[in-house]
Amino acid sequence: MENFVFQSPTKIIFGKGVEASVGEEVKLHGTKVLFHYGGGSIKKTGLYQRVVDSLGAAGVDFVELGGVQPNPRLSLVHQGIELCREEKVDLVLAVGGGSVIDSAKAIALGVPYEGDVWDFFAGKALPGAALPVGVVLTLPAAGSEASDSCVITKEDGWLKRGFSTQFNRPVFAFMNPELTFTLPPYQTACGAADIMAHVMERYFTNTPHVELTDRMCEAVLKVIIKNIPIALREPDNYEARAEIMWASTLAHNGLLSTGRTGDWASHQIEHELSGIYDVAHGAGLAVVFPAWMKYVFRRDVQRFVQFAVRVWNVEEDFFDPEGTALEGIRRMTEFFRSIGLPVTLRDLEIPDDRLKEMAEKTKKGPDGTVGQFVKLTTEDVLNILKLAK
Amino acid sequence: MENFVFQSPTKIIFGKGVEASVGEEVKLHGTKVLFHYGGGSIKKTGLYQRVVDSLGAAGVDFVELGGVQPNPRLSLVHQGIELCREEKVDLVLAVGGGSVIDSAKAIALGVPYEGDVWDFFAGKALPGAALPVGVVLTLPAAGSEASDSCVITKEDGWLKRGFSTQFNRPVFAFMNPELTFTLPPYQTACGAADIMAHVMERYFTNTPHVELTDRMCEAVLKVIIKNIPIALREPDNYEARAEIMWASTLAHNGLLSTGRTGDWASHQIEHELSGIYDVAHGAGLAVVFPAWMKYVFRRDVQRFVQFAVRVWNVEEDFFDPEGTALEGIRRMTEFFRSIGLPVTLRDLEIPDDRLKEMAEKTKKGPDGTVGQFVKLTTEDVLNILKLAK
Repeated sequence: MENFVFQSPTKIIFGKGVEASVGEEVKLHGTKVLFHYGGGSIKKTGLYQRVVDSLGAAGVDFVELGGVQPNPRLSLVHQGIELCREEKVDLVLAVGGGSVIDSAKAIALGVPYEGDVWDFFAGKALPGAALPVGVVLTLPAAGSEASDSCVITKEDGWLKRGFSTQFNRPVFAFMNPELTFTLPPYQTACGAADIMAHVMERYFTNTPHVELTDRMCEAVLKVIIKNIPIALREPDNYEARAEIMWASTLAHNGLLSTGRTGDWASHQIEHELSGIYDVAHGAGLAVVFPAWMKYVFRRDVQRFVQFAVRVWNVEEDFFDPEGTALEGIRRMTEFFRSIGLPVTLRDLEIPDDRLKEMAEKTKKGPDGTVGQFVKLTTEDVLNILKLAK
Repeated sequence: MENFVFQSPTKIIFGKGVEASVGEEVKLHGTKVLFHYGGGSIKKTGLYQRVVDSLGAAGVDFVELGGVQPNPRLSLVHQGIELCREEKVDLVLAVGGGSVIDSAKAIALGVPYEGDVWDFFAGKALPGAALPVGVVLTLPAAGSEASDSCVITKEDGWLKRGFSTQFNRPVFAFMNPELTFTLPPYQTACGAADIMAHVMERYFTNTPHVELTDRMCEAVLKVIIKNIPIALREPDNYEARAEIMWASTLAHNGLLSTGRTGDWASHQIEHELSGIYDVAHGAGLAVVFPAWMKYVFRRDVQRFVQFAVRVWNVEEDFFDPEGTALEGIRRMTEFFRSIGLPVTLRDLEIPDDRLKEMAEKTKKGPDGTVGQFVKLTTEDVLNILKLAK
């Protein structure tokens, strides 16, 4: 186990109807908020009005900025920063999923910063302060409601980049599983892939002796694998939706990273897919991860055997570890397919004429490689993309 | 799953040698601390001097108060409160195990309170403020380093009472597994029982659909069951000590309670054992838990079957759920015995002449019962104590 520092201070308010008290919670942090959201779905479902009512009842004033798109854009972030400055906003309230929350985080980072907030994402500067961010979550997937990460897309060049800092941890997150009853099946499935990918990026590590976090990773994966098919069959099954929602947070609040080095190559590779083709992040991950696994699993076959046996209930063939490992990868791929996700680039209708460009654009470290479990060169990334065809 | 609020903001600084930076961390909260500790062991191991050096290097001034005993006493808490007031202390730094941390928490609660701090434990008042508490942990067991709970013994009547509040959450906890290499085997084993009891109090619930937290509970239990025997054979096995130490925190920081109602009868019953006979809390739990389980398991046999199968690797007898459940309880009892713990009152050399007194003294709720999984009357508690003979 490696040394680590872990602090996840986000206050989680979880359960039926909890969003009715969002105004009171906001009030602990100020009296003027930016109400930030995406498309019109929160107006259709009535959530928009319930939040407005709760803010009003608590005597909290707000300005609003909707229109966050999936793969949230830098230009809207810039707009939000201006608005917060003009209106002297105390807190950014994100009502939505990961895109809205990430957009809110970037706005919160940008408000007290004199330069362009993109500097943080480009690795040119570090923040010294940020506005607090609060969340009403509508989509269990990104885990952004309690994570220290934030991913923004710069339209100029379609660069999608992440930036992690403790300032990104929301001060509170309201999580009502009922709000996810109306999610379309495809979004539910994409969320599953996103949650599972967050766990698997951490699970495939070269750090020895990480037994507790291994088992906690397996717990989250098994709960998702069991409950996603239930939520797809019965969209308003509260218990299944609740298990999925809490799992999504724990998959990415940093707990499962404690004492171990994660990989994250698949996320970087996927960023180029969704950056260029604007596919759903979870769908892109469902395509990249099986290919990545097939390409790297020989680096530590026993880790993949453990994954196959404990997570996918593969009966271990003690005389064929590679076969056992591959059966785990096969079952994962079949699971993705069974819940309606693409598992190849062809499924995503992505042609193979820009694979080289994506491999080259994939963000590398100073040594020119991406990933930790296996350090991948541009050629390796290209090979993985070809395996994903 | 039940609605819940969860916030565990303690900053965990975990790993080899981390305590060298305790001064810098303290400095974020003030310049004058109460250095609170137990017996002389931290002086023998050199930890005392390392903390003094680190505080000095950071320019932090301190007053000290040692002498915390197991089952920490109210009289020393009163002394600490006076000292903090006289010396205008900014933070209470607990260097030790659960007893030292709980004593520090009670001091921190008492400093800004005009009445007697026991009021909180007696249920007569609620705190409105507290000093921050920081921790350098030497004993993985109580989980107090990140929990909201605190247990104090009032010498007058030997009343042992717990009190939970968000104010009890330490602001930071330094956790270096190397500091636990010198723990005597019995203390290591008592710690294991304490950790496992914290998980099992949560595990045995009537709340349906708690799959994620069930699996996380099982993860912690399996890691303890595997690593305690290793730590007993090889006291300086860093990896085993690290797994145990991190498990001890996660067992009791509230994560495993999210969305479910725990039981806690065994803790209340044990409080009377260790309150009257001053036995180690973990040892008392190893005696009470098997008896409690045998008395209540028919309330939900399937939950005990799951416990037996998943935690203790019992092969399920599908035609004999009670037999499967009992085999799990038997294996747990055997495990406690195998690591050198008492599993009966006789093992603890506790006579049976005061069982009735203990059953009567065990703290009950307003309805006169204790526990949630099964609501136990005084007679039930007496029966459990008799089963534990």
